[in-house]
Amino acid sequence: MDQQIDDILQKNRNRYLKQMIEFLSIPSISSDPTHHADMRKAAQWLATDLTKGGLEHVQIMETAGHPVIYADYLKAQDKPTVLCYGHYDVQPVDPIDKWNTDPFKPVIKDNIIYGRGTSDDKGQVFMLAKMAEVILEARGELPVNLKFCFEGEEEIGSAHLDDFVDHHLDLLKADVLLVSDTTMISMDQPAVSYALRGICGLEVRLQGPKSDLHSGVYGGAVQNTLHAMIELLGSLHDKKGHVTIDGFYDQVKPLPEEERITCATLSDDEALKKELDVSSLYGEEGYSTVARIWSRPTLELNGLFGGFQGEGLKTVIPSTATAKITCRLVPDQDPALIGALIKKHLREHLPAGVKLNAELMDHAEPFSMPIDHPALKAAHNALEEAFHTKAILSQQGGSVPIVTTFHDKLGLAPILMGFGLDSENFHAPNEHFHLQNFDRGMCALIAFLFDLPKQMN
Amino acid sequence: MDQQIDDILQKNRNRYLKQMIEFLSIPSISSDPTHHADMRKAAQWLATDLTKGGLEHVQIMETAGHPVIYADYLKAQDKPTVLCYGHYDVQPVDPIDKWNTDPFKPVIKDNIIYGRGTSDDKGQVFMLAKMAEVILEARGELPVNLKFCFEGEEEIGSAHLDDFVDHHLDLLKADVLLVSDTTMISMDQPAVSYALRGICGLEVRLQGPKSDLHSGVYGGAVQNTLHAMIELLGSLHDKKGHVTIDGFYDQVKPLPEEERITCATLSDDEALKKELDVSSLYGEEGYSTVARIWSRPTLELNGLFGGFQGEGLKTVIPSTATAKITCRLVPDQDPALIGALIKKHLREHLPAGVKLNAELMDHAEPFSMPIDHPALKAAHNALEEAFHTKAILSQQGGSVPIVTTFHDKLGLAPILMGFGLDSENFHAPNEHFHLQNFDRGMCALIAFLFDLPKQMN
Repeated sequence: MDQQIDDILQKNRNRYLKQMIEFLSIPSISSDPTHHADMRKAAQWLATDLTKGGLEHVQIMETAGHPVIYADYLKAQDKPTVLCYGHYDVQPVDPIDKWNTDPFKPVIKDNIIYGRGTSDDKGQVFMLAKMAEVILEARGELPVNLKFCFEGEEEIGSAHLDDFVDHHLDLLKADVLLVSDTTMISMDQPAVSYALRGICGLEVRLQGPKSDLHSGVYGGAVQNTLHAMIELLGSLHDKKGHVTIDGFYDQVKPLPEEERITCATLSDDEALKKELDVSSLYGEEGYSTVARIWSRPTLELNGLFGGFQGEGLKTVIPSTATAKITCRLVPDQDPALIGALIKKHLREHLPAGVKLNAELMDHAEPFSMPIDHPALKAAHNALEEAFHTKAILSQQGGSVPIVTTFHDKLGLAPILMGFGLDSENFHAPNEHFHLQNFDRGMCALIAFLFDLPKQMN
Repeated sequence: MDQQIDDILQKNRNRYLKQMIEFLSIPSISSDPTHHADMRKAAQWLATDLTKGGLEHVQIMETAGHPVIYADYLKAQDKPTVLCYGHYDVQPVDPIDKWNTDPFKPVIKDNIIYGRGTSDDKGQVFMLAKMAEVILEARGELPVNLKFCFEGEEEIGSAHLDDFVDHHLDLLKADVLLVSDTTMISMDQPAVSYALRGICGLEVRLQGPKSDLHSGVYGGAVQNTLHAMIELLGSLHDKKGHVTIDGFYDQVKPLPEEERITCATLSDDEALKKELDVSSLYGEEGYSTVARIWSRPTLELNGLFGGFQGEGLKTVIPSTATAKITCRLVPDQDPALIGALIKKHLREHLPAGVKLNAELMDHAEPFSMPIDHPALKAAHNALEEAFHTKAILSQQGGSVPIVTTFHDKLGLAPILMGFGLDSENFHAPNEHFHLQNFDRGMCALIAFLFDLPKQMN
């Protein structure tokens, strides 16, 4: 790393962290209407920071939902343009009683910062904003053109981003999409992803008797809605962990032998068991842990509820039961088709005495890109420089639906260069982010911007 | 019915209903600590009403939980003594949004009173208190000795009643136990019960990974706690509605042919489907609806929850899942043995990757009495006089654990003469009570007190 830039990063580190904490302290929970003003506040904070950092044309741009923040630097003539994407909204914080610290009063302990959004994705959005500021301070100019597009609805399915992109095709035109919303393999092992799982989500509601019933009076003579739900959900997997929905795997390509070996090599089951505090792992028979996450589709229950939840017992037969389901999809599964197959399965396996209501919700296409793309090469070089080790060409178990949006609408090659760790509890209590990866990530991002024009020449 | 008593009932009806509404308006939810003062208030209201009605030795007697109200009339020399039992506590009101009226602002519409406790059991407790007041007003004396024991913990398992009875064996000594906490067959068909199902309840908690996980990062590679719960709970019944726990039916006697016919005759499946708004009923194969409720044991899920319950979707793999289970038991099943069998089954069927915690909670022995008991005869006569039709000798699907307590500790023959209807939504939103059964029930209770000494001579 260039000494001058390194000095700036060192000198300003405390100031950067203070700024990051300020940003993280705003509870920008996009799904919760009571945090509407906080979403606005977070957008404003980011816009102000980008302006101070030397970016131009900074705008808070309205959508039908939460606003998008746009900024750019367009003075690098004949150089590639990088569109930087991230999101300033965060997940809800429930169950709040499981947090050891206030999710919106970030604290740093042992070089780890704790708080909602530290890892997913405000911490990393902050890094994208800072990389430009640092280079401008050192050089007075950037080696590439930059555009920023930070949305506020990623955690609620990016409902208005498609529409936003459609209406601003010229404004967002670029060569490469840089996304810092993915994870590394481990603390010292960076990765650059070339594939993402897609998603298909639905809510399933069963209605039994018109109201809750006393189990002494009716118990045994009427379908218990929870029993029906268990029977129905129990029909979705077999004993080997396979999804039993007819046609679910039809579009899934067999795992290439090479990838099977890579995945097996990367799987560290003992470490994962220890990390999660479980006595054994569980998944689809015939696949290693990493293959199960990177290359195989899943159907997961994310929530299930019905009947009495209070202390003690209540002898009711519940009237309704609800399940929240999401599938992770791999190329070339089609979320709409999978959704239809699930609904068909649910209808066909519906137990007697209950009514079914299954509603499709979030969905995202799975994605992959050619592994010899020059931008991937630049990312590799940058990560190697910052981490002093070769980056792994990885896939991601998660979904970044916007990658498909930007690819399909603007032809952008996505570089998924994230600095989070899978163990950092994003979407869960006690989310955190390792500041060592803040430091190395800043180096990597900056190195990427310097190397990219060389690779793309 | 005696003309003088009938006149008093007519003349005072509006005043009685006003008093009942006053009593019902006190939110005496025993399970909720925030209603502690209301429990006290309801106890005091009842004690005052019994005193005004002419009962003696009225006391609010402390227990380790909510108090018991005692009162008596002991001037009927050489006559039998009837111990009247009821409970002044009520069920919680959730889900509150399903109520059409305020559960604690009772309203009367079309001769039906709506509110929590109208049917179970404050409305009927009120009737027990009033029957003595009416006879005393008419005759200045009662045909039997009466004792009242109204507890405040029936809805939370009568935790301290056993202890209370143990400490007051002399005070509570009697010949017959009169309980108005059961139901009639239908609007015009009264019943007197000679058997009750018992209960065995437990809470089952599964713990998977130590915190909620992101389904994109871990999905497919770790046991989903909800999937494990579904597999485990799915193992409790077979496709024919039988409970599959080893030994569950070992103590259950085969249904006598006579009872099988009675139950089949009383089963009105079409009416029940309409009442509950379900397209089909469901239960153990080989038994009619009434047999399933009266004579067969059940295992029911009363509550189930884990993971995300908010609006939309959240891509988590939940860390924990909880199920609330109660069994209804028939003679000669032993609740402790059944509880142990369930726990054994759960341990043996536990899926990989989760930890089990199963805790036994409420339990009550099933009960039955000889059908030629003279007090049953008196109850029959009284019901026939009040309803102008023969009462059915019935069993109850529900449990009144205190019946076993009073039988075992005091040798009391229980008369379960209730005036509720199964359709009156006790333990559910919009609980109500038909005032026609208030009127006929008052007649029946009073007739019972007059006939009992004749039958027991």
